[in-house]
Amino acid sequence: MQRYFINQPADGQKLALPKDVAHHLVTVLRATVGSQVELVLADHRVYLATLTATNPAQVKIVQDLDRDSELPLRVTLVCGLPKTKEKPELIVQKATELGADRIVFFESARSISYWAKNKQAKKLARLQKIADGAAEQSHRNRQPQVAYYPDLESALAANPADQRVVAWEESAKQGETSALHRLLVGMTTGQSLLAVFGPEGGLTGQEVERMQEVGVVPVGLGPRILRTETAPLYFMAAVSYASELATTQR
Amino acid sequence: MQRYFINQPADGQKLALPKDVAHHLVTVLRATVGSQVELVLADHRVYLATLTATNPAQVKIVQDLDRDSELPLRVTLVCGLPKTKEKPELIVQKATELGADRIVFFESARSISYWAKNKQAKKLARLQKIADGAAEQSHRNRQPQVAYYPDLESALAANPADQRVVAWEESAKQGETSALHRLLVGMTTGQSLLAVFGPEGGLTGQEVERMQEVGVVPVGLGPRILRTETAPLYFMAAVSYASELATTQR
Repeated sequence: MQRYFINQPADGQKLALPKDVAHHLVTVLRATVGSQVELVLADHRVYLATLTATNPAQVKIVQDLDRDSELPLRVTLVCGLPKTKEKPELIVQKATELGADRIVFFESARSISYWAKNKQAKKLARLQKIADGAAEQSHRNRQPQVAYYPDLESALAANPADQRVVAWEESAKQGETSALHRLLVGMTTGQSLLAVFGPEGGLTGQEVERMQEVGVVPVGLGPRILRTETAPLYFMAAVSYASELATTQR
Repeated sequence: MQRYFINQPADGQKLALPKDVAHHLVTVLRATVGSQVELVLADHRVYLATLTATNPAQVKIVQDLDRDSELPLRVTLVCGLPKTKEKPELIVQKATELGADRIVFFESARSISYWAKNKQAKKLARLQKIADGAAEQSHRNRQPQVAYYPDLESALAANPADQRVVAWEESAKQGETSALHRLLVGMTTGQSLLAVFGPEGGLTGQEVERMQEVGVVPVGLGPRILRTETAPLYFMAAVSYASELATTQR
C-alpha cells in the first residue's frame, strides 16, 4: 500500500493532506473517496487512513497499524564526498532502504569534488528528497536526515554516537575480520552507531590516526576491495543482519 | 596495485600479455619496464609480476602472493529481470564486488522487460565485461559468470546448489527473521548457495510455491521493503558478514 510521511500530530481522526501528497495520491495514483493509504505521522507511527474527500483531499484515520520497520540501532553514515553526482544519490537511496538514520557527506583529504557554499542547500535538498521518497517506498517509520560538512572534524563533532567505527581497508588487508562483529553483538536496542567511509582514493593514514585518537574503531568489511559507494551499503546490510536476523545468537 | 585476469596456465616464469591487458597497462597506465602488476592466472591464484618488455608486452612472474579474497561459500544470485537496463548492470557490478560466483537473470512472471533472442549474446557480453572489470577492481580471484534464462525453471535446473533460498517479502511481513541466519550458520566452506530474487513487482505466490515444492527455502531480509536491485546486494553482504566477519560465533 502507498505510504506517505505527514509531519502532523496524530491527535484527531480527520486530516487534510498536504498539497504534494494530495497531488500524488489523487492526480497521479487516481485514488478516489474510500481509497486506503498508510500515513506516518509526526509520532513516527503508521496509520491506516481512508480518503474521505479529494478536493481538497482529506482522510479519516482508521487504525494505528503498530508497525515498526526501523533498525534496532540508529546508524549515522559519514561518507567522504565521492567524485560524481550519482554516487551520493545512490548511497542516500540505498542506505535509506537499508535503514540508515542519518547520512552525512564531508570533504575528505582525498575527495576530488566539493560543494560550493552557494550550492550546498540545493544539493542537500535534492538528496533529502531522494531519502524521503526511498523512506516511503521502503516503508520506513522515519525519513533519514541528509547533511553536509566541510571536513571530518566538524562532521564528527556534530554527530555524537554511542559507538563509532571507520571502514578501513588496511584493517582488512591485515586480516582483521571480527572487530565489527564484536562491536555489533555488544550493542543494545536504541543505541547509536556512527560509521566513517572514505572517498574513491580512500581515507589517508592521517585521517584514520586522528580518528583512532578520539576512539573511533577501525573495522574491516571483508577481504574484497569495495567501491566508495558499496562500503556503506555493505555496512548497513551487516548491521541489519546482525541486529535483525541473527538475533538468535545474541 | 593493478590486477588483471589472464586465462593462461602458471607454468613458466615468462608470460606474453594479451593485447587488451597490454594496451591498458602500457598505453593507458603508462607502465614501463620494471613496473609491477598482480596477475590472476588460470589457477585462480594471484601472482606478482614485473614488466620486462613493452612492445610486445611481456612479464616475468616474481612471486605467488598466496592471496584469496573469495567468499567461503559459492553464491549464485538468480534475479528476476528488472525493468531498466541500468539495474542489471548495478546488480552485476556490486554483486561482483561483494563476492558472487554466478549472477543469473531470468524472465519472472512479473518481469516487464525481456531479452529478445537475437540480443541476448550482446547483452550478456556487456554484463560479463562489467563483472570482469569489477572483479579486477575489487581484487577477486575469480570472475563471476553472468547468465540468462527465459524462465525460473530452466534457471534453477541449470544451477544446482547445496542450499537454495528465495527472498520473499511476505516472509518478512510474517515476522520471519532468522531462517537465513539458521541456514548460513549451518553451511561449511566450499558449499554452494543459490538465492532467488523477484523483479520490481515481486515474485508471484505461485512462483514461490513452486520453489517451495522443490525445497527452496523462503527467507526474509529484514522488515524494510528492498528494491529489486538492493535485495541481492543485501544478501551478498549478509553472506559475507556471516561467513567472513562473524566467524568467531560459528
